[in-house]
Amino acid sequence: MTAAREQPLELTAISHNEGVDAAVSAARRVIASLLHAGDGSAAEMKEVADRLNAVADHLDEHAPAMDQRMVDMWSGEGITRHDPVTGPENTIAPPLHLTGKDDGSVEGVVALGLPYQGPPGHVHGGISALLLDHTLGVANHWAGQSGMTAELTLRYHRPTPLFEQLTVTGEQIAVDGRKIRTRGAITARGEVCVSADGLFIAKHLPRPR
Amino acid sequence: MTAAREQPLELTAISHNEGVDAAVSAARRVIASLLHAGDGSAAEMKEVADRLNAVADHLDEHAPAMDQRMVDMWSGEGITRHDPVTGPENTIAPPLHLTGKDDGSVEGVVALGLPYQGPPGHVHGGISALLLDHTLGVANHWAGQSGMTAELTLRYHRPTPLFEQLTVTGEQIAVDGRKIRTRGAITARGEVCVSADGLFIAKHLPRPR
Repeated sequence: MTAAREQPLELTAISHNEGVDAAVSAARRVIASLLHAGDGSAAEMKEVADRLNAVADHLDEHAPAMDQRMVDMWSGEGITRHDPVTGPENTIAPPLHLTGKDDGSVEGVVALGLPYQGPPGHVHGGISALLLDHTLGVANHWAGQSGMTAELTLRYHRPTPLFEQLTVTGEQIAVDGRKIRTRGAITARGEVCVSADGLFIAKHLPRPR
Repeated sequence: MTAAREQPLELTAISHNEGVDAAVSAARRVIASLLHAGDGSAAEMKEVADRLNAVADHLDEHAPAMDQRMVDMWSGEGITRHDPVTGPENTIAPPLHLTGKDDGSVEGVVALGLPYQGPPGHVHGGISALLLDHTLGVANHWAGQSGMTAELTLRYHRPTPLFEQLTVTGEQIAVDGRKIRTRGAITARGEVCVSADGLFIAKHLPRPR
């Protein structure tokens, strides 16, 4: 965390734009387009289902054994590529891309589409919780002491708009023995929509080997 | 809520197994298979990306205008089909299917796969938050007084296993003017993994018309 750093540090994986990452980007388009289409669409949904099932069949025929995949997925000690918030291999992830700042906090910018909707035209409160839980975890990693979520409190100050640029931030506040306290927020147009306070415990589940 | 009811009441949409629902079910297979495959797979990922982009192109060519789709999506006063937890039109939704019980609570059973992973072999804490926020909202609907989440506190008692049957429950505890208090939990093998306390405010955003 030297003041001399000019570029923010990447704390989440960058998409390859090739291999599985490119396929996942295309799959993100499919899930958004399916929800946009709905049943009022003139698209041939039976044919779409057949084409998607054929892709899944092709992938399954060539997939590694699950236990081997779990080992590979968790190899190395660095940034994961499979989580549902930032992972370039996980279609569910918007994805949110987080960088570490010199002041010790982490930050990312994202706009969320239809699959993340809760109230009309706004982000689902549980999706905001998902983004914040993960961001607080990454903030702990950036601060040097990470752990597992023990308690998370979310406060919803105003509805979070869909389709607009959101800024997601996280910052470790205090470490007391194994207890870690971390805060974060989602802001839109400069106003806080959701804030989060987390208590984490400095422990980790073993990685598959 | 009469004692004479013999079947639990469906509080979330049932998948059609045709039309867009069938395509979404196939898309769920694709996102799980992509994550299982990863970059160590022998599948032709460039070809997979091309095939998925072609499906998205087909859907987009036939999609209704977004404002029309938003109106359709929110028509009627009943169960939504597009939310990211229960919606049969939303690929992100596992989906969780919730039913209303005679004691006033709601309950659903679900097993979560790789896309929902947080710690190795376990459910992401933010995904548990997503499921519980939504379930508490449905519990409020079932109890007759619903609203928007104002505050949500999640307590993580033990890691929530991936690939195993989870029971998700919600129950409205108290209504005091516009303030609604609701509780819920995720249990596995009869033990509570995550519990949630929510404060909701009895108001709703306007639906698009």
